[in-house]
Amino acid sequence: MIPVMEIFGPTIQGEGIVIGRKTMFVRTAGCDFRCSWCDSRFTWDGTMKDDIRMMSAAEIYHELREIGGQSFNHVTISGGNPALIKDMGVLVDLLHKENCQVAMETQGSKFQNWMRDIDQLTISPKPPSSHMNQNLDILDTVIAELMPQKINLKVVVFDEADYQFARQIHHRYPAIAFYVQVGNPYLDDTVDKHTEKLLSRYEQLIDRVMTDDTMNNVYVTPQLHTLIWSNKKGV
Amino acid sequence: MIPVMEIFGPTIQGEGIVIGRKTMFVRTAGCDFRCSWCDSRFTWDGTMKDDIRMMSAAEIYHELREIGGQSFNHVTISGGNPALIKDMGVLVDLLHKENCQVAMETQGSKFQNWMRDIDQLTISPKPPSSHMNQNLDILDTVIAELMPQKINLKVVVFDEADYQFARQIHHRYPAIAFYVQVGNPYLDDTVDKHTEKLLSRYEQLIDRVMTDDTMNNVYVTPQLHTLIWSNKKGV
Repeated sequence: MIPVMEIFGPTIQGEGIVIGRKTMFVRTAGCDFRCSWCDSRFTWDGTMKDDIRMMSAAEIYHELREIGGQSFNHVTISGGNPALIKDMGVLVDLLHKENCQVAMETQGSKFQNWMRDIDQLTISPKPPSSHMNQNLDILDTVIAELMPQKINLKVVVFDEADYQFARQIHHRYPAIAFYVQVGNPYLDDTVDKHTEKLLSRYEQLIDRVMTDDTMNNVYVTPQLHTLIWSNKKGV
Repeated sequence: MIPVMEIFGPTIQGEGIVIGRKTMFVRTAGCDFRCSWCDSRFTWDGTMKDDIRMMSAAEIYHELREIGGQSFNHVTISGGNPALIKDMGVLVDLLHKENCQVAMETQGSKFQNWMRDIDQLTISPKPPSSHMNQNLDILDTVIAELMPQKINLKVVVFDEADYQFARQIHHRYPAIAFYVQVGNPYLDDTVDKHTEKLLSRYEQLIDRVMTDDTMNNVYVTPQLHTLIWSNKKGV
């Protein structure tokens, strides 16, 4: 059984290696991290614990079709940290059987065998501003288990310390596709000129990477969904 | 010799399959199309013909390093239509020898053997709003020459007729990665609230694709550079 926080879509994947892809989202509950700027705190802070449903893979697939009809062939598993869930492999297999591709994001703190079957697996180690202490030895073992799969790395950057962390991660795994993503500190929807501020931060991050000759083989990306919808849930 | 309109970077690739990638740009002069909404008219309308320089591959590479230093390992060849230029293969080979990846975009009206060597080749057939009459038989032959290379298709959408054209192209080549890109009608930089208007058009295009169950295996993307920099040249 899988603890499901929300199922929604189809919408676009707003970030990372499949940015722009038409997809459905399955968001699981529970996380081993408590990032200071987490945009999905409700998956772990207890405020929405009554909304968590324990669902089988078949039930999740049924609900995906109920909501998305025939208008999708791609599903993104998000969290929380879906890598905590042992039984997720059943869902991944079922989605593949139904001709859906599957993407997933996790922080790289835990490995499960079924992660090898994910079509687009993003490992997103957490930088200093998260106030988490990402264990790089564990990250090494998780990535070693997944190679030579098609995985990609993504680091969210809020400030210079985060940028240095991003550089460290990129240089630690230079062969893996690397995404630098601008952080979103505007989790309060009442913030004025939200899009303008995010684009300004994005431009600063671009400038930082463009002048850094140790960061060439990289992608610098925003979160498209926050540019359009701010922090609205369910899109 | 290659007719060069401008060389600039490093900056991000703002669109398509390598959206966000740190890259240098080499923009060639000359085009066989005259799209109504072309954002690089100066490559073919004669207004900047005095800026065109006939350059060898070695000269272009030298200038790329002069401007970009060691801060790039990816070059995007843009136009105009670079597929018009027979001698481009020398530059592509030189860039590969220097450990640079090469991306290119063309409308698919012409094939050159060196196009098979491009790392990320985007074919962008022009929809009705361009007032061009894209010849789909020629497009078939160009794509047939390139298969099974890793090419991708991109169609810019301004209105419903364009959307129907995008659908037609996607269904004609269902196995090729497909990008629907929101059109930018605001080529005049004095337009007020440019970013807001583009994001609103982008959201409408997302809504159109999300409810269309014949358009599942697709990416819906904006032009990141126009969101940040409007129509500024050289970024």
